[in-house]
Amino acid sequence: MDHSVIQAFSTFTENERMINLMNEKLEEWYSMYFPELKTGSPKSYATFVIEYGKEKKAADEKGLEKIFSEYAKHVAKIANESMGADPDDKEYALIKRIAEQELQMIELNDKILEYIKESAERLMPNVTAMIDYKVAAELLTKAGSVEKLAMMPASTIQLLGAEKALFKHLKFGSKPPKYGALFKLQEIANANREDRGRIARVYATKLAIAARADAFSKNYIADRLNEDLKKALTRNKKHDNNQKQ
Amino acid sequence: MDHSVIQAFSTFTENERMINLMNEKLEEWYSMYFPELKTGSPKSYATFVIEYGKEKKAADEKGLEKIFSEYAKHVAKIANESMGADPDDKEYALIKRIAEQELQMIELNDKILEYIKESAERLMPNVTAMIDYKVAAELLTKAGSVEKLAMMPASTIQLLGAEKALFKHLKFGSKPPKYGALFKLQEIANANREDRGRIARVYATKLAIAARADAFSKNYIADRLNEDLKKALTRNKKHDNNQKQ
Repeated sequence: MDHSVIQAFSTFTENERMINLMNEKLEEWYSMYFPELKTGSPKSYATFVIEYGKEKKAADEKGLEKIFSEYAKHVAKIANESMGADPDDKEYALIKRIAEQELQMIELNDKILEYIKESAERLMPNVTAMIDYKVAAELLTKAGSVEKLAMMPASTIQLLGAEKALFKHLKFGSKPPKYGALFKLQEIANANREDRGRIARVYATKLAIAARADAFSKNYIADRLNEDLKKALTRNKKHDNNQKQ
Repeated sequence: MDHSVIQAFSTFTENERMINLMNEKLEEWYSMYFPELKTGSPKSYATFVIEYGKEKKAADEKGLEKIFSEYAKHVAKIANESMGADPDDKEYALIKRIAEQELQMIELNDKILEYIKESAERLMPNVTAMIDYKVAAELLTKAGSVEKLAMMPASTIQLLGAEKALFKHLKFGSKPPKYGALFKLQEIANANREDRGRIARVYATKLAIAARADAFSKNYIADRLNEDLKKALTRNKKHDNNQKQ
């Protein structure tokens, strides 16, 4: 079970990279015919190629809205004024297939993500009740198994995924990292720079307890942990404010 | 036209890399369930997963022959004696989709290759009549266009694709390269080590003439060139023999 989630997560990560690579190729190719169009997202670029790539001037604003929402008007304009020709049938058939392949890979990755969510929640009910399941899956991947994660001290969990930065710190004396995979949590990424380390530490402390429950006691204690987490975060903040005064 | 072939070739190369990456992930994952099976080719591995991945012991020799030909017996044996369990339905559904995606990418790349063949033959009838169209497409990609290829001296064509080795030679004094993309020609790859440079030179000389015909005169002179090529190769050989005596 641990290994299935880990495999799924590593396939997901690799696939994401491949989708971007594939879109780069698609854009490189199709930009011969529509140099003005820039990729907002791989998905919208590929969808445009499939629906309007053979005759871009036929793209109407209404259809484009489904792909580009608020940018539809802009895309309609540049499609109409484009200095690019349209590809011939043979070449277009190929370009279109590449775009279709890309969409299929995106779809596949959504399925993989679903699977990761379900299995991570089953495997680590406490950890996934506290943090985003993708971050939970990454912690699990770095640790190797729920048991191994549960046996790590909070300080190690805090830095999981920051191995390179930690190595640089130990070897060359650069600044020590304050968080690894945990940085992907909204609560940390969106916090002020100077608060992030502290918040990561609080999360890591509670996650260590959650992981132990998931691995050993199998009790569901996440509601209590989430409350503790909230308290610890505000307490810590107050403490900071006191210090500042 | 030049650019379409170049785009197609670069997409083909990138795709090939992606197919291998995808198969690595597939093998990493499915090897949890069938650790004894090694990838002969990505295609056969993926096909096995699709057809027998849910219940590997059900694989009969006859069905396996279509996938593994002479290795069918061996695969049937290791499938039967495997120490791996079978994946559950949910996980298998995902693994199977990855395998299907991989096969689709292989299929797509076959289509791209077809397109490269057709367009390279149309664009460079003389060059492709002398060498494999894939090598021709690679030379074209390195040169940038048929015109540019046609304006290169034979010595440059001989080393197209060996830029790194040439740079190392000029900068650090390592051994100079004797061939670049041309090494992929059967006639050169299968030749004796000490003959390869000479054969590459002969090819490059005739290819330079062929490229000029493709770019400028548009005459079809490949039959004559091929004869010249054959003569030059045997003459050169005789010359070598004479020297040795």
